[in-house]
Amino acid sequence: MKLLRYGPAGEERPGLLDKDGNIRDLSGIVDDIAGKWLEDLSWTKDLDPEALPMAEAASRLGPCVSGTGKFICIGLNFADHAAESGMEVPPEPVIFMKATSAIVGPNDDIVIPRNSTATDWEVELGVVIGKCAKHVSRDEALEHVAGYCVINDVSERDFQTRRSGQWTKGKSCDTFGPVGPWLVTRDEIADPQNLKMWLKVNGETMQDGSSATMVYGVAHVVSYLSDFMTLHPGDIISTGTPPGVGQGLKPPRYLKAGDTVELGIEGLGGQRQQVRADT
Amino acid sequence: MKLLRYGPAGEERPGLLDKDGNIRDLSGIVDDIAGKWLEDLSWTKDLDPEALPMAEAASRLGPCVSGTGKFICIGLNFADHAAESGMEVPPEPVIFMKATSAIVGPNDDIVIPRNSTATDWEVELGVVIGKCAKHVSRDEALEHVAGYCVINDVSERDFQTRRSGQWTKGKSCDTFGPVGPWLVTRDEIADPQNLKMWLKVNGETMQDGSSATMVYGVAHVVSYLSDFMTLHPGDIISTGTPPGVGQGLKPPRYLKAGDTVELGIEGLGGQRQQVRADT
Repeated sequence: MKLLRYGPAGEERPGLLDKDGNIRDLSGIVDDIAGKWLEDLSWTKDLDPEALPMAEAASRLGPCVSGTGKFICIGLNFADHAAESGMEVPPEPVIFMKATSAIVGPNDDIVIPRNSTATDWEVELGVVIGKCAKHVSRDEALEHVAGYCVINDVSERDFQTRRSGQWTKGKSCDTFGPVGPWLVTRDEIADPQNLKMWLKVNGETMQDGSSATMVYGVAHVVSYLSDFMTLHPGDIISTGTPPGVGQGLKPPRYLKAGDTVELGIEGLGGQRQQVRADT
Repeated sequence: MKLLRYGPAGEERPGLLDKDGNIRDLSGIVDDIAGKWLEDLSWTKDLDPEALPMAEAASRLGPCVSGTGKFICIGLNFADHAAESGMEVPPEPVIFMKATSAIVGPNDDIVIPRNSTATDWEVELGVVIGKCAKHVSRDEALEHVAGYCVINDVSERDFQTRRSGQWTKGKSCDTFGPVGPWLVTRDEIADPQNLKMWLKVNGETMQDGSSATMVYGVAHVVSYLSDFMTLHPGDIISTGTPPGVGQGLKPPRYLKAGDTVELGIEGLGGQRQQVRADT
């Protein structure tokens, strides 16, 4: 099932994508794609998408999940991306937080912050938590995952590493977290560690990787995080990016107003953002 | 006004502390100490606490604010604490995030995580956002503050700095964010940069400082953060700790099951936590 949220920002309604690519309205079935509706997905089992009302074709897509308490990111989780960043693969997962206020829809604009010199892209596999997870083993970790989605972990490299320590500063700007287009429930993804991942800027391919080269896979990361803190329904884990970010190019290349960013992951759909300046 | 939330965890009701130290119920007036009720505090102006129903004296206190989207911390914000940590005062504020799932009531237990060797204390002045703040100047910053509260920024030093980078890992464990006892509205605090701060472990004074020695004050920090991300009602900023943390002692001293931690800030009340092991 491809679950989504559609409508104006802040007023999104729950929906799903039917087999013909139409948005169907779910607001007669669930309140939102959030909380208890993620914790127990049994309501999706006998659902007949064709019986649901159709939404307007031109509807804006919001972030595919709501009520996100934590937006956790895994740093340097692809060996070749670590290399292009001039850093070692860490002996255990590096974790940092992105502000939940950075979350936007998959096709909303990316706003370059004031005083930014180095706004960069990162296609990432997003993991959305279903059932609460605390001290779960790797074997049972995926049972706590509701599904997967595409994330652009937009990053300002100057804020991240050259403006007095801790990466969160360069990761948390408004619009730096496009999430969606849809939450693909776990039953539809046979192997999260074998998905092609790609990102283009103005039509030019910049990232062309696969979740197969992730250092710490989804089950490892969910289990690992659950030893530090309880994961709750709607929490998002962004699992790191493959090589090809702007910072790693020689010379580095960053986003500017007017650019278009397109990205996607096999089976999870695609995003498309226009880049503009903070006004 | 001293606003608070009381009742069992997850079922707290809004309340206030009257002049005799009794909890009065506010649930006939506001839904919660959150969101729009923080954004515009005019409902507190003509309130007669004596006319409100009294709560049971033995009620548990919850965190004094709800709906917190971001729990932002300022690192190394007291020169003498930076020195005891063996670090320099940074040229601009260091920011990191604490998971909002770490938030607990002011007198709830602190749970030492599994495999912890270095769970430490930090009394901090908490700033609760009222009106949204984006690109606000230092002069106007305090207008976006709803009020202040006490925070214990509980920290696992081994997780924070010796388990593969980024401090959030040692800051985000469950129960690592006692918040309260009350949210003291801004009109009651003449100068947030002149408040005594203290913390005791088993009755012994460990921290005995003042917000007067903060490097980057509240107005500076709110303005600074608002240049990176929009601050929303209910967001909490924990502004850093004065010297006297366990890590800074020679030899270092950390919390163990059975310890009692008491802490407070002038005008903002006190907290008291029992320390126990994760079971």
